[in-house]
Amino acid sequence: MKGKKHLIMLPGPTNIPDQVMRAMIKPIINHRGPEFHALYERVTENLKYVFQTRDDVFILTSSSTGGIECAISNVVNSGDKVIVPVFGVFSERLKDKVIRRGGEVIELPVEFGKAPIVEDLKQIVDLEKNVKAIALVYNETSTGVTVRDLPKIGKVAREKGIMLIVDAVSILGGDYLPVDEWGVDLCVAGSQKCLACPPGLAVISVSKRAWETIEDTTAKPYYFDLINFRESSKRRENPTTPSLPLFYALDETLTLLHEEGLENRFKRHEKCARAFYSAIKALRLMPFPKEKFRSNTIIAIDVPAGVDNTEVRKIMKEKYWVIVAGGHEKLKQSLLRIGCMGIISEKETLLTISALENALNDVNYPVEIGAGMAEAQQIFHL
Amino acid sequence: MKGKKHLIMLPGPTNIPDQVMRAMIKPIINHRGPEFHALYERVTENLKYVFQTRDDVFILTSSSTGGIECAISNVVNSGDKVIVPVFGVFSERLKDKVIRRGGEVIELPVEFGKAPIVEDLKQIVDLEKNVKAIALVYNETSTGVTVRDLPKIGKVAREKGIMLIVDAVSILGGDYLPVDEWGVDLCVAGSQKCLACPPGLAVISVSKRAWETIEDTTAKPYYFDLINFRESSKRRENPTTPSLPLFYALDETLTLLHEEGLENRFKRHEKCARAFYSAIKALRLMPFPKEKFRSNTIIAIDVPAGVDNTEVRKIMKEKYWVIVAGGHEKLKQSLLRIGCMGIISEKETLLTISALENALNDVNYPVEIGAGMAEAQQIFHL
Repeated sequence: MKGKKHLIMLPGPTNIPDQVMRAMIKPIINHRGPEFHALYERVTENLKYVFQTRDDVFILTSSSTGGIECAISNVVNSGDKVIVPVFGVFSERLKDKVIRRGGEVIELPVEFGKAPIVEDLKQIVDLEKNVKAIALVYNETSTGVTVRDLPKIGKVAREKGIMLIVDAVSILGGDYLPVDEWGVDLCVAGSQKCLACPPGLAVISVSKRAWETIEDTTAKPYYFDLINFRESSKRRENPTTPSLPLFYALDETLTLLHEEGLENRFKRHEKCARAFYSAIKALRLMPFPKEKFRSNTIIAIDVPAGVDNTEVRKIMKEKYWVIVAGGHEKLKQSLLRIGCMGIISEKETLLTISALENALNDVNYPVEIGAGMAEAQQIFHL
Repeated sequence: MKGKKHLIMLPGPTNIPDQVMRAMIKPIINHRGPEFHALYERVTENLKYVFQTRDDVFILTSSSTGGIECAISNVVNSGDKVIVPVFGVFSERLKDKVIRRGGEVIELPVEFGKAPIVEDLKQIVDLEKNVKAIALVYNETSTGVTVRDLPKIGKVAREKGIMLIVDAVSILGGDYLPVDEWGVDLCVAGSQKCLACPPGLAVISVSKRAWETIEDTTAKPYYFDLINFRESSKRRENPTTPSLPLFYALDETLTLLHEEGLENRFKRHEKCARAFYSAIKALRLMPFPKEKFRSNTIIAIDVPAGVDNTEVRKIMKEKYWVIVAGGHEKLKQSLLRIGCMGIISEKETLLTISALENALNDVNYPVEIGAGMAEAQQIFHL
């Protein structure tokens, strides 16, 4: 059927409300003029609501990776000690970025499928002297794992005077993350995940106490220097030409988010995730993460032995109009990942479970068609 | 009148064709899937046509400043000697970026309003040993000056084995710039200037001989590392999530550009620029640059003594619906700058001249209303 749209159940980009898409085609305005200043102020205020912060937030024209680069390069000087728990592809990348800055990485290796816990981090900070920062992925997009100990880790960091940098790319706006309360100094997310906006922007929060460190950091990439962002924010502008269509889209999606309310939004994500995990169990499949670490925004499923991941995803897309992702790098074939993000609701959840059941059946994997759907329905209606 | 749109005559962003705007709201697709691969290939091929290159081109999710950062940080190691002609705000910034990378800048200061000439550069490269690169702004957005000696400078650089990095942010697609023929190694432009696309992307060309240097460059920002772009381009993908709506828009605008033809596009810009300069003369105003350095894409006008720049621009915008820019930094009050870019045609040119005439008249500056328009009309119709 011509014009039929796929359901985008990727771990980002994800489905986007029509009015957010349409916001992009508003007329171009001068990014140094009063109309932009009003837009900047509104977006910034709504973004503070999402981060639950009274401190600073900025919008970068870059992918989330650029946002992470920004956070790291504004804090880490050559020789600085940084603790990085590694438990997936994106925490590996976080480590690489610290190394590129000449930082000394103290790696905390964690089995993939599990999350670092506060006791492990406490042990390291008690042992190591002069640790500058902890750089932590809150939600590992590659494994579907959330670090539930983040508030406790924040407490430890604050007690020891250690900076806490958090990669919240695939979770901000989808699960709890009050950065002020939890003591997160720099927190980064992307526009195209739980914020339900098209890709092309990164957002970052900066705590009050972070500024002193940022001022002392040398040889930052000019483009990501937060000092420039702080300066231009006084004029309610970005240092360089912002991506205006995406600013419009972010404005629209944050307005919708504000109307829904953060708490409602988190509960909606949690309920859909619960429906997914119940369906997975009913289909006798296994989520990749251990139960207590499972993410509400990324559902990672272990592909059963003998099932061709690529084939299943192809069938889901072509026959059932639902797009999901495989795994990353060494998990490429063994994981199937579903984004449970942004505008996720009963509709998207049920359609995705249905497509998964059908596709597994099509490749002759023994599933009881409808069993997953029935479990999910109960979550929504009982 | 509600819904009435301003004419955007800024030195970028500029007016954008409706179909380019509408392209942004095409459905989101997987940026690791076959539909994106086809899009990537088409955009890349059309971009090679614009750069007139057979070598590599890449698309960055960043403003143009990020693109420049990318070029500099992939070539300049700490201690490397880089010649930077400084003749405006953007060449100042280019210098700063080299310094941030730890490069040793050999500055060639040029009076604002003039452009560096090949003889001056030749003198420096004959004197200095071990120069790694020349970093040059081809079109100074802040002064309306174009470096007409660029092909000659390219020849000198090639003879001496010096890399040539060119900031073509406000000129690529609006005036001659065959990067292979002129020996430009890295050339950067933005989406929102002569390419008539919304802001949010930078584009960069990389010559064959540049790769060896790039491979030897250390401590690059991860986000801008061209090695990653080269690797992912083999899969027809970007290293990190691209800004899909802007990819769609770039695809559309490059298709239009290809249909028009580069040569026709350059002539159209040149004719409109000629109309502007003739009108300026007829109104007894003065362009800021010396005649032989005048840009075809940025028209910079000296604001006559006693005329309030801010007031004139305010009247042009509010009463005559045309938005133009003031100057940058120390030229803020003394320059009025008009973007002559992208879809610029007789219509936009005449309306802007008309608005300028009227606004000057409104602030009691003695202009003969219609005199500029009449001169411009002749350019288009005689």
